Amino acid sequence: MEKRSFEQIRDKMLKSAKEGIKSAYSNEEYALIQAINAYLETSKSYNLSYERLSEWYGIYFPEIRLNNPKVLADLALVMNSKDGIDKDEINKIINDEQKSESLYKKAQETIGRSMNENEKKALISFANLSNDMNRSLNELEEYIKLAANEILPNTTYLTDEKIAAEMLAKAGSMERLSSMPASTIQLLGAEKALFKHIKFGSKPPKYGVLFKMAAISNAPRDQRGRIARIYATKISIALKGDYFTKKFIAERLKEDLEKGIKRIKESPPREKKRSDDRPQRHGRPQRQGRQDGMNRGNRRPRQRY
Amino acid sequence: MEKRSFEQIRDKMLKSAKEGIKSAYSNEEYALIQAINAYLETSKSYNLSYERLSEWYGIYFPEIRLNNPKVLADLALVMNSKDGIDKDEINKIINDEQKSESLYKKAQETIGRSMNENEKKALISFANLSNDMNRSLNELEEYIKLAANEILPNTTYLTDEKIAAEMLAKAGSMERLSSMPASTIQLLGAEKALFKHIKFGSKPPKYGVLFKMAAISNAPRDQRGRIARIYATKISIALKGDYFTKKFIAERLKEDLEKGIKRIKESPPREKKRSDDRPQRHGRPQRQGRQDGMNRGNRRPRQRY
Repeated sequence: MEKRSFEQIRDKMLKSAKEGIKSAYSNEEYALIQAINAYLETSKSYNLSYERLSEWYGIYFPEIRLNNPKVLADLALVMNSKDGIDKDEINKIINDEQKSESLYKKAQETIGRSMNENEKKALISFANLSNDMNRSLNELEEYIKLAANEILPNTTYLTDEKIAAEMLAKAGSMERLSSMPASTIQLLGAEKALFKHIKFGSKPPKYGVLFKMAAISNAPRDQRGRIARIYATKISIALKGDYFTKKFIAERLKEDLEKGIKRIKESPPREKKRSDDRPQRHGRPQRQGRQDGMNRGNRRPRQRY
Repeated sequence: MEKRSFEQIRDKMLKSAKEGIKSAYSNEEYALIQAINAYLETSKSYNLSYERLSEWYGIYFPEIRLNNPKVLADLALVMNSKDGIDKDEINKIINDEQKSESLYKKAQETIGRSMNENEKKALISFANLSNDMNRSLNELEEYIKLAANEILPNTTYLTDEKIAAEMLAKAGSMERLSSMPASTIQLLGAEKALFKHIKFGSKPPKYGVLFKMAAISNAPRDQRGRIARIYATKISIALKGDYFTKKFIAERLKEDLEKGIKRIKESPPREKKRSDDRPQRHGRPQRQGRQDGMNRGNRRPRQRY
């Protein structure tokens, strides 16, 4: 009898262990992390394939230059031989009578190579793949929007869905992200530059993922760091609301944020510092010994990430 | 009258310039170069997306490990929720009654997260993209095979379509490739390692693109370099046949090649050299001065490409 009860206990323990693992997996945040990583990676592949398609298509129609990957791929699908090009088909893509007329003319008079059937098949297949990537990116983005608004409503309100999700992916879990101090949040995604700074004494990074915010990347150079700091402080508060209290506090935070940014914009521009004659910052003494020891050859490459 | 005739001449010249450009584009080799580059880039993206999909799918079914990207994507399409999994659908993909039975069981008892509808849509979209990439790769490969056999029949016979096309892409044109000496052909694709060798005195590379040949990569370490050299000499002859004489001479070349490889395989293994006590190679005196000058800190990382 004793043995049987031992086995019963064992089964129970196994079951509870499995339940534990299951609950660890049960948060949707892990799916969101996978989705945003898939999005970012696919996005890179998409850019690469656009560049390749643009070069490939350029053999046949060197006169045609397009900046939009979707338009290029669509055009490659309908305008891939000199004969039998349908003007209406072009117009359906471009949606501009005059431009499609000029494209049509250019295609007629092109000095490019005329493709054979096999090449055409390969090119069409590749253009189709480019469109498939575009479609998949849109579908992933749709999910990211839904999930980020679910999991990180406050943070998403302050930034946007993709930036919030990317910060979550960099941190690894909501638990870790929400317990990070503002300074860590400010530099999420700038790890490489940060360690370069610590090891070689290059300029410290001012922002990581946050640089994707238009409010930061479009600001004047000397204000960016300060704006990023305000963002980081507000985001760190927003994250507490997202993970712990589950309350929507982002509206007040955004007001504060905008006030802070306004204050920075109105402050007089900082004096330019020369790197060989840096004034001591008041308040906080610089760690002289360490800096000297770390600065090898005084290399200070300009660093963004 | 004079002006008109001047304009006539101008028109004629313009036309002939255009014709010149046209004929420069007219070779199919440029399409092949684009196609092989597209293939190699897409292939990288495909691997990346497989890794991501495998990690993503792992949240839901951590018990299932698959090595084949196509099977994984197909499975993600039919086996994405615990309920409503169709055993026959799994079997259609795996084609093995026993294995699909065990997969079905694992899926039923999984400790993974159960996905909601939105996640499912995103995952399916991503799995579909993976399959789209696979399809496009196959179609590109089809074209590469046709074109390489057309443009580089001799070289393709000695190596294979993709390696021949990749060498062409690295060289930039048939004219440049066919006029390269065997030593350059041997190191096509190993440019980085070569310049590292010249600059820092690391070990010189023994092969570039050619390493993809099974005959080289599967050979014992001390024979690979010599086999690559034989390949390179025969390929450089084959290229002359491809570009200049347009004759099919590859059969005789392959015989010679195989004889040469056999000779290497039968030769006694070389004595192992210690790097700090290298014997002078007989016949060819080592350039002592240069080597010493170039060897900074005696770094000799093992180098493949």
